[in-house]
Amino acid sequence: MVQAARWLRLPPEHPFNLAALPYGSYTAASHANVCRVGVAVGDHVLDLTTATSRLLPARAHLFQSGSLDDFLAAGDLAWAQVRDSLTSWLSDDQYRPAIEDLLVPAAAVRLRLPFTVADFVDFYTSENHAANAGRMFRPGAAPLPANWKHLPVGYHGRAGSVVVSGTAVRRPCGQSRPPGADVPTFGPSTRLDFEAELGFVVGAHSELGEPVPVSRFAEHVFGVCLVNDWSARDIQSFETVPLGPFLGKSFGTTISSWVLPLAALEHARLRPPSADARLQGYLTETANWGLDIDLEIRLNGSVISRPPYATMYWSPAQMLAHLTVNGAAVRTGDLYASGTVSGPEPGQRGSLLELGWNGTEPVSLPDGTSRSWLQDGDEVTITATAPGPDGVRIGLGSAAGTILPAVREVPAGRS
Amino acid sequence: MVQAARWLRLPPEHPFNLAALPYGSYTAASHANVCRVGVAVGDHVLDLTTATSRLLPARAHLFQSGSLDDFLAAGDLAWAQVRDSLTSWLSDDQYRPAIEDLLVPAAAVRLRLPFTVADFVDFYTSENHAANAGRMFRPGAAPLPANWKHLPVGYHGRAGSVVVSGTAVRRPCGQSRPPGADVPTFGPSTRLDFEAELGFVVGAHSELGEPVPVSRFAEHVFGVCLVNDWSARDIQSFETVPLGPFLGKSFGTTISSWVLPLAALEHARLRPPSADARLQGYLTETANWGLDIDLEIRLNGSVISRPPYATMYWSPAQMLAHLTVNGAAVRTGDLYASGTVSGPEPGQRGSLLELGWNGTEPVSLPDGTSRSWLQDGDEVTITATAPGPDGVRIGLGSAAGTILPAVREVPAGRS
Repeated sequence: MVQAARWLRLPPEHPFNLAALPYGSYTAASHANVCRVGVAVGDHVLDLTTATSRLLPARAHLFQSGSLDDFLAAGDLAWAQVRDSLTSWLSDDQYRPAIEDLLVPAAAVRLRLPFTVADFVDFYTSENHAANAGRMFRPGAAPLPANWKHLPVGYHGRAGSVVVSGTAVRRPCGQSRPPGADVPTFGPSTRLDFEAELGFVVGAHSELGEPVPVSRFAEHVFGVCLVNDWSARDIQSFETVPLGPFLGKSFGTTISSWVLPLAALEHARLRPPSADARLQGYLTETANWGLDIDLEIRLNGSVISRPPYATMYWSPAQMLAHLTVNGAAVRTGDLYASGTVSGPEPGQRGSLLELGWNGTEPVSLPDGTSRSWLQDGDEVTITATAPGPDGVRIGLGSAAGTILPAVREVPAGRS
Repeated sequence: MVQAARWLRLPPEHPFNLAALPYGSYTAASHANVCRVGVAVGDHVLDLTTATSRLLPARAHLFQSGSLDDFLAAGDLAWAQVRDSLTSWLSDDQYRPAIEDLLVPAAAVRLRLPFTVADFVDFYTSENHAANAGRMFRPGAAPLPANWKHLPVGYHGRAGSVVVSGTAVRRPCGQSRPPGADVPTFGPSTRLDFEAELGFVVGAHSELGEPVPVSRFAEHVFGVCLVNDWSARDIQSFETVPLGPFLGKSFGTTISSWVLPLAALEHARLRPPSADARLQGYLTETANWGLDIDLEIRLNGSVISRPPYATMYWSPAQMLAHLTVNGAAVRTGDLYASGTVSGPEPGQRGSLLELGWNGTEPVSLPDGTSRSWLQDGDEVTITATAPGPDGVRIGLGSAAGTILPAVREVPAGRS
């Protein structure tokens, strides 16, 4: 592993060490209207917009807007060159004069949504999660849907509801049907949940009508972020037949502030379980894009679950191949997520639905309270780390959000 | 009705008469790289980008990009002012010198996607269509899903696959399971279909967390377009449980080149069937946004159906209220569609699935052939008209597309 320059005082055990170098978008307190692209370096943020204008002028235009959009679109050669340059600047003492004034304490910046989300797709690729849902909702039947081992099941979500970590999320209102009732009632969701997921951020677009094979995953996908796909189980349950989840999901989806490039995950790659299955040729996983990433979920500060991403059945390269096999194109800023990450053990489940087994086994918290579903004021924080070079671990940052009470007044049709 | 200036030679029976005035985006053959906003005036297109710079400079910036995006975002006062100005320019002889050179023959321009699609939602608001699907796929059960009369069922589609009328659509490949088979096969869809729909284009955005009531529909929605939601029934059938349609729909969605503003539809408004039902308060339809629009579907030039939009159960104002009641925001460029428009009569059905009753009653064409599903080379054209003032009818243009053969080579995972 490349050593950080000594003047940085960056210990290799810091989750944002030199093997991580995730990208984000921020405004500094001193210039609240100026958005910049930043790179997390320990407890600091490097102003990459200014750094490239000084040290890498040929690429500086990619960072002028302050969002990652132009950099994402630039493709894998640009991604590699910028990462190589960053590594040099932060390891070689000669660059200290050029960048030292560009390191801002992370506590002094406000992180923004790092890129403009184009289409948002959510998959359902954890076998444990899908089987848990089957056991709860279809007892006696096969736990997995008939298609589940043949293709990565997924659906489109609402791109306009994706918010950055730290944004409060309002409890949604909607229609749900209480058990045994004939007709639905309307009101604030009483079964509010989180789903801990990994998200994949598309950089380079593809063409409409041209499928993207598994082997070209890393040419199109730039990196990963953490995702909390907030879910109102009561609203979702009433609406979901026949066209799938809609308002039970579309009120808010939280992503982490930092996008970690795939290049940082070389040491986390592994063979996913589906690589040993007989699959249609377009889904054959040849490049081992399973990922050994450990997630951690905190509820009001207490760890309630540690989902292992390594157990996910389908890899993100397979998800991309499936998403495009019908000719659908991907665009810069497309976000697709893994679905809830749940391991085989009870303490590895990625949603309250599973941790509390649909309300029958509430989760106990250290303050003496327990939760079947989220309460107003609850804060959910998802973090993750992955193995890096030489035994260090690297961080993916966090996706955090707090539940606001529902709106009191529900607008009637009459004005 | 305001009379067109005589020099325009625009008969009032032309579908693009002065009561229509739909907006689009185009490039002229002479300046293929310059995108302009245009208005359909009879068989001509008025260059609105240049016209506003000459005659309405305070609004000219809204049309500089050549797409409708900035105009959509500007809100209802701007929409009304521009429409009023257009009506004056085209009816009062004094404007002839200022605009005559800006009228280009429609045959000489290339129409583009009129706006940048943000989120795409597709509803399922035809009672006849939903009941037909129920009768075909769940014989013996209630034709409508349990939630159908309580809320407008909908789901998110793929915004990045929306293309403008005239774009060829490639037959998708995917997995499907033949009747009686245990495992799926992979290949080109053999049950390719169209769905004739009406689409609603959002102009002014709303705020995350703040529902939009039925009464504020016309402040947010700018206008309507025609939609063909191409569907691969075999792919859709295998993938759809449990999360809804995905690749069976996401390969392509065609919209008309022209967006007709709501202001043109005042004479088409009617009370939708749901206005007489007992509904949750937020869905009460108070402003009669049902729409008396007659659709027509042609297959290779022959009319095969005439779906009446007036029969749709839920109004677009109710769809918008439902879409946002959980706090989801709408953004400029959001497109939401009605779902297949099917009337009560066999000749009024909006999909081949229904017209051919799931392949059991193929549709006969004048050339002696018949169709259960679309063949390569088939062209589907959806057109529509609505009542305007003084007995004239106004046109919505057309959404047309031709089926290209599937790609021959399916990419394998191995590179």
